[in-house]
Amino acid sequence: MTELAERLAKILGPKGWMPAAEAGPFQRDWLDRYGAPPFGVARPACTAEVSAVLAAAHAAGVAVVPQGGNTGLCGGAVLGSPGGVILSLGRMNACGVPDAASGSIEVEAGLVLQMLHDRLDGSGLMFPMHLGAEGSAQVGGLIGTNAGGSHAFRFGMMQDLVLGLEVVLADGTVWNGMRAVQKDNAGYQLRRLFCGSEGTLGIVTRAVLKLHPAPRQRATALLVLPDEAAAVAFGTRLRAEAGEVLTGLEFFCELGLDLALRHVTSLGYPLETRGGTYLLVEIASASARMPLEDILTATLEWGMEEGLVLDGTIAASDAQRGAFWRLREEQPEGQRLEGAQLKHDVAVPPGRIAEFVAAAGARCEAILPGVRINPFGHLADGNIHYNLSPPEEAADFGGKAQELGLAIAGLATEMSGSFAAEHGLGQAKIALADALRSPVERQLMRSIRRALDPAAVLNPWAVAPARD
Amino acid sequence: MTELAERLAKILGPKGWMPAAEAGPFQRDWLDRYGAPPFGVARPACTAEVSAVLAAAHAAGVAVVPQGGNTGLCGGAVLGSPGGVILSLGRMNACGVPDAASGSIEVEAGLVLQMLHDRLDGSGLMFPMHLGAEGSAQVGGLIGTNAGGSHAFRFGMMQDLVLGLEVVLADGTVWNGMRAVQKDNAGYQLRRLFCGSEGTLGIVTRAVLKLHPAPRQRATALLVLPDEAAAVAFGTRLRAEAGEVLTGLEFFCELGLDLALRHVTSLGYPLETRGGTYLLVEIASASARMPLEDILTATLEWGMEEGLVLDGTIAASDAQRGAFWRLREEQPEGQRLEGAQLKHDVAVPPGRIAEFVAAAGARCEAILPGVRINPFGHLADGNIHYNLSPPEEAADFGGKAQELGLAIAGLATEMSGSFAAEHGLGQAKIALADALRSPVERQLMRSIRRALDPAAVLNPWAVAPARD
Repeated sequence: MTELAERLAKILGPKGWMPAAEAGPFQRDWLDRYGAPPFGVARPACTAEVSAVLAAAHAAGVAVVPQGGNTGLCGGAVLGSPGGVILSLGRMNACGVPDAASGSIEVEAGLVLQMLHDRLDGSGLMFPMHLGAEGSAQVGGLIGTNAGGSHAFRFGMMQDLVLGLEVVLADGTVWNGMRAVQKDNAGYQLRRLFCGSEGTLGIVTRAVLKLHPAPRQRATALLVLPDEAAAVAFGTRLRAEAGEVLTGLEFFCELGLDLALRHVTSLGYPLETRGGTYLLVEIASASARMPLEDILTATLEWGMEEGLVLDGTIAASDAQRGAFWRLREEQPEGQRLEGAQLKHDVAVPPGRIAEFVAAAGARCEAILPGVRINPFGHLADGNIHYNLSPPEEAADFGGKAQELGLAIAGLATEMSGSFAAEHGLGQAKIALADALRSPVERQLMRSIRRALDPAAVLNPWAVAPARD
Repeated sequence: MTELAERLAKILGPKGWMPAAEAGPFQRDWLDRYGAPPFGVARPACTAEVSAVLAAAHAAGVAVVPQGGNTGLCGGAVLGSPGGVILSLGRMNACGVPDAASGSIEVEAGLVLQMLHDRLDGSGLMFPMHLGAEGSAQVGGLIGTNAGGSHAFRFGMMQDLVLGLEVVLADGTVWNGMRAVQKDNAGYQLRRLFCGSEGTLGIVTRAVLKLHPAPRQRATALLVLPDEAAAVAFGTRLRAEAGEVLTGLEFFCELGLDLALRHVTSLGYPLETRGGTYLLVEIASASARMPLEDILTATLEWGMEEGLVLDGTIAASDAQRGAFWRLREEQPEGQRLEGAQLKHDVAVPPGRIAEFVAAAGARCEAILPGVRINPFGHLADGNIHYNLSPPEEAADFGGKAQELGLAIAGLATEMSGSFAAEHGLGQAKIALADALRSPVERQLMRSIRRALDPAAVLNPWAVAPARD
């Protein structure tokens, strides 16, 4: 170890190598559930340094875990046992010039998502990835976890926004796949395989990202509906009527709204009616000629005539639009401030959301009577953040956390869905994956992993553990 | 071999097993450039039969090549040397019921694309994959080659339209990944990896495909422009003005138009002006409220004021729209009827199309003076079908075919593009891949292939040959 530390210190210099004593801020995931002490943190400044670090660690048989903004929810960017190296990409944060004619931009992996948005501001182009952690999340981590977010149903997940990649492989070899075209069928889709591989197949150092025209107008509505079935029916109509310009279709429930309003005092609720379910609808267009408000109003009127929509309002200003979004986005914070919580991230076919919510509710109630259920998320792709708070008066889940998690994950799986929709597996969902996915699928992943990293040095605790 | 033949005949029955003598129609690719005699053709009726066939072939060490509609252009669906089994999926052609609320449909791999379009007709949903061969191409082949087509810039390639897959692996093991959600980050994106793997990693037997709302209105224009630079500039503006509803942006040149008009006598040209370049523009919407003609007219007027558009007309009827599209789609037929030809399928960043066309023209002219160049394709994603006819009076390319191919492919590669944009590698582009892609990339592909098919029985001649 000492020998490797000396080697890495020499490769990286004093700015690039932090020994164990300084590694504190990098050691734990941000929910503080995972992470063991590294023997040092490597902070390379360029691809050549990443390559040299990996070559050295590989030769020494020491594990390396890449870390971006460390905003993941599944412990995928920290160590599973002491002694490995954390490789932080934060110093590699260059951002190229947006290319409007080709609709792309080159970036380094350590670029923070918000910085990319800022860079594109005023260029007429946008990168359509938005999520709560965008002030810290880095491009490399977004790629490694194949991030989704609120606009994925329309613009795709991270893998759909990556045209080209540069990746340093387990032994330090550099794969230059920095091509800038959507259509590249010269063999396997390596760029797609690396997306979502959580640092287990290679370390992403650079990327060519796909850009879209920036919207010139938006219309945003907050709706109250009787229940999830109404939300699904309304959403189906909305996709048919406004499919090309629909950019947001978020749902949440009474409990989530209540927790947000109670704990986040700056929030206000703009309507008189309360309901079983709420929808935040946003349509947007790069063209100034699209009659967005007409489309939204017509669909809303249809929903009211059909009894699917109880009440609703269209944002009259950007400030009000922001306020609507905060009602949705502050719900995780509201629930956090309420006390103990369990987060789940599942997906079911969008048409089955109501069925899932009803069945999952019954399962949870049977396991822990009175458990408070807060399903919210992305209606158009069926991604439900099915979060729980303990029963009123209870401080925790009475030892039922694992049973609840398995019931929820199992149900999503039975319904042709996913128990790990957008947050990945990391260390947190390995047991679930082994329980809920077929041995064939787990073995396929292990085979691929072993083929690319036979020495099992790359994030060996994530996805499909490399070491027994 | 005799033993395996008996075994396969028993597994498949008389409807499902065709011995060598009957294999003629399956033996060659449709350009009649590749294919060796198989010792039989397996035509399984269900996944269990596919599994049994692969298990038997695997045990015998005999190669298996899956074949869909056999419309590929790179020899990926036929044998590279005599004696293997061709596995035709044509009998597995079931099509499920479209699910409007979830936006998906389950199909078997042998379903012909046109049958899927017919099935969806009137449902309010569409599957946004259109290509010349859709009357024969099967879903499994589209997945295996990761098909692109004219709408890929908007709706993605085949990998973007696949939610779930069932795949039979090399030894007959069945992987059931028939999930029906976009967001599934439970490990590696296996569904994406199988797309474009050309039957070398497994045989796709079923899929869950993503559907989009069907358009309720369209506007289609045929434009004449001075040159490719004008086309790129106009296309950039069009993406910004009509990004969400742009569904077609095809370009072609004077030679291609001329060959089509000369040889396909049912075609007519509707404008007075001829130019250096032509654009076929289509915008479409599922909403009846979008002012499509206004958007198109306004952008067209802008183009004329800027001198980018010389002439143009908007289709006044569905019949005229069809006639515009035929002008584009009959160009390969026109060139085929002209005599000898060379087809190339490259992509460059869309903003560099004009630069590519100029530089590639100069390279080709230097290699074979007078060679007639017909670049056409998909402007919005930079996919150029750069096809050649011999110089006037010449019957062929005078032995320069390979040199021309390498020059064109090399230039696309230098420009951060691809030499195999949407047709795949098959057997035809192995040498190009080995010449133009890094050894690191080729080795990565071989490692993945070996991990999933160590016995090298699955289509061993395609992608990155498994047998030395």
